[in-house]
Amino acid sequence: MTFEILSTDSNSKARKGIIQTEHGFIKTPIFMPVGTIATVKSVHQRELAEEIKADIILGNTYHLYLRPETDVLEQAGGLHKFMNWPKNILTDSGGYQVYSLADNRKITEEGVKFKSHIENVMDTQRKIGADIIMAFDECPPYPCDYSYAKKSMHMTHRWLDRCFNRFNETEPLYGHEQSLFPIVQGSTYKNLRQESAKYITDKDAPGNAIGGLSVGEPNEHMYEMTDIVTDILPKEKPRYLMGVGTPEDLLENIALGVDMFDCVMPTRNARNGMLFTSQGRINIKNLKWKYDFSPIDEEGTTWVDHEYSRAYVRHLFSVNELLAKQICSIHNLGFYLKLVREAAQHIENGDFSVWKPKMVEQLKQRL
Amino acid sequence: MTFEILSTDSNSKARKGIIQTEHGFIKTPIFMPVGTIATVKSVHQRELAEEIKADIILGNTYHLYLRPETDVLEQAGGLHKFMNWPKNILTDSGGYQVYSLADNRKITEEGVKFKSHIENVMDTQRKIGADIIMAFDECPPYPCDYSYAKKSMHMTHRWLDRCFNRFNETEPLYGHEQSLFPIVQGSTYKNLRQESAKYITDKDAPGNAIGGLSVGEPNEHMYEMTDIVTDILPKEKPRYLMGVGTPEDLLENIALGVDMFDCVMPTRNARNGMLFTSQGRINIKNLKWKYDFSPIDEEGTTWVDHEYSRAYVRHLFSVNELLAKQICSIHNLGFYLKLVREAAQHIENGDFSVWKPKMVEQLKQRL
Repeated sequence: MTFEILSTDSNSKARKGIIQTEHGFIKTPIFMPVGTIATVKSVHQRELAEEIKADIILGNTYHLYLRPETDVLEQAGGLHKFMNWPKNILTDSGGYQVYSLADNRKITEEGVKFKSHIENVMDTQRKIGADIIMAFDECPPYPCDYSYAKKSMHMTHRWLDRCFNRFNETEPLYGHEQSLFPIVQGSTYKNLRQESAKYITDKDAPGNAIGGLSVGEPNEHMYEMTDIVTDILPKEKPRYLMGVGTPEDLLENIALGVDMFDCVMPTRNARNGMLFTSQGRINIKNLKWKYDFSPIDEEGTTWVDHEYSRAYVRHLFSVNELLAKQICSIHNLGFYLKLVREAAQHIENGDFSVWKPKMVEQLKQRL
Repeated sequence: MTFEILSTDSNSKARKGIIQTEHGFIKTPIFMPVGTIATVKSVHQRELAEEIKADIILGNTYHLYLRPETDVLEQAGGLHKFMNWPKNILTDSGGYQVYSLADNRKITEEGVKFKSHIENVMDTQRKIGADIIMAFDECPPYPCDYSYAKKSMHMTHRWLDRCFNRFNETEPLYGHEQSLFPIVQGSTYKNLRQESAKYITDKDAPGNAIGGLSVGEPNEHMYEMTDIVTDILPKEKPRYLMGVGTPEDLLENIALGVDMFDCVMPTRNARNGMLFTSQGRINIKNLKWKYDFSPIDEEGTTWVDHEYSRAYVRHLFSVNELLAKQICSIHNLGFYLKLVREAAQHIENGDFSVWKPKMVEQLKQRL
């Protein structure tokens, strides 16, 4: 995996770049649609590639481990082949879904079961065959007291060492390279975030992630933590802010030097009738759209934006038709991907810091 | 609307033809996907046109009347524009959904409310703007005693006169022609079917329908009734057998001179994991497909047939993902449309009567 920075913004830490893997280019900043169990809900793979123009999607290791089960993925030749997705895949470690300090106090770090679990998670990600695989970490809740946050962070660091050990003593299974990204933790404590960012930086991984944010803390705390961490993480490596977020969050964090994002928001909200547009949010179920035969989003880049009217999509929701969810999922993902492409363009043009605050205000509107 | 017969089979009543309306060609025999409330469930309009190659779809007047409501369709400029479907639409009259002799004994035929209802149904179909609109009829249940069947048929005939009166004194609203098809009734009684077929023939409509079949009677009764009716209905007009059926039913009735079909079976069964293929039926939820990475249907004509494996679709059903329903709906509709195209080709080639029984046997298999 390689990463090249193509442009930087002179008034912020924003940068435009390109990651290359054996499954193609990932133009950054990038948003990764969430495809938990080998499908981005209600969206066809060819729509993801051709309409939404996603360079990479995310899968969830723990869910995939349960179903279709790892042996099915192995026999298929990996997740790419199983779901017929030729572009990039990133898998999370499923860490927080399986274990947490809070829920597993009985399980000591030295316990046999637990000891092997971290290694199993690495092996499972080998079997899934994602291009980018994530270290096994604990994502502490918010709010989180200092002593818990510190203890959790140190455990995540020790787990990280074991992740790299296992990763380095195993090989990719399907003939393409896999890259392991470590994850910065430390809750909302500056000194912990700094300590964690330094620990992670020392791993010299091909990319680095920031975890434990967007878990309920005020946006300002998120931005503050990101800012502190991106001051430490190496500039020449891509930075991935996990689980973020709203369109506004993407732009604010791009300004802070983040390159990669993922979130269920565009797809989950789509299924509930909430559309993101560059003019603001739309609740398409609202009665006000009943006779509005204008396109869903005149500025949209996918075919659904122009082929279907607001009145039509509202009708589909009112009669509980599946096509409603399909249309809105394509629209919202298309919008997120368009937004990050626009951000990249403005970074290249040198006017990102002029464009960004104006766009953030627009995005917050309710139509 | 015009209809031209291009080829006829010398060993059966099967014929290949072409209907032309202002919304394009309909190559017959044709299967019409059911799009009850302005959507063929879980299928995008462009997939219907480009992948499934549907020349015409069906809408349900009564459902559309309730939602999105007729005034929305009027303001949109008709159903074609509302749902952005540029090809043909046929609407049923919604008759059996609103009134039946059995459920509405209190409503006399002369009652004011009832009197205006038939005219309202015609007006509603004008407002929807379908290319082909259906007469208001009663579809008697099966089994049905002779006296009820006779009484119901005569009422349907009297209603038909009123439908034509209203139709002829009104105009299309959106600049394209609409054609009214009358419907043969008569339950499973030969002499009633003959009487009804003659009554309907006398209307000299641009096309004729056969209703009241596929309501629970044995297949042999259906074929017998169709056979009797197509001996009487004019050869030079398209014949539409309403609500039929399985792939086998399509082939058997094509042999009896039917040109048009509709049924919820391909889409409803798809949503339950039942796939039709030329080798037989597949229950894709079955454990036997867990490791089957072969295409859904190697002979399929839509992109889903080749992009997704049986193991993948089985997985999607096992985790209750919407994409499962989308994939199977496209496949099944694609299969139905391919089947009628193949039938047309065999009629043209002159070997329809050799091909048909062999194919019917294959279609009945369970894989």
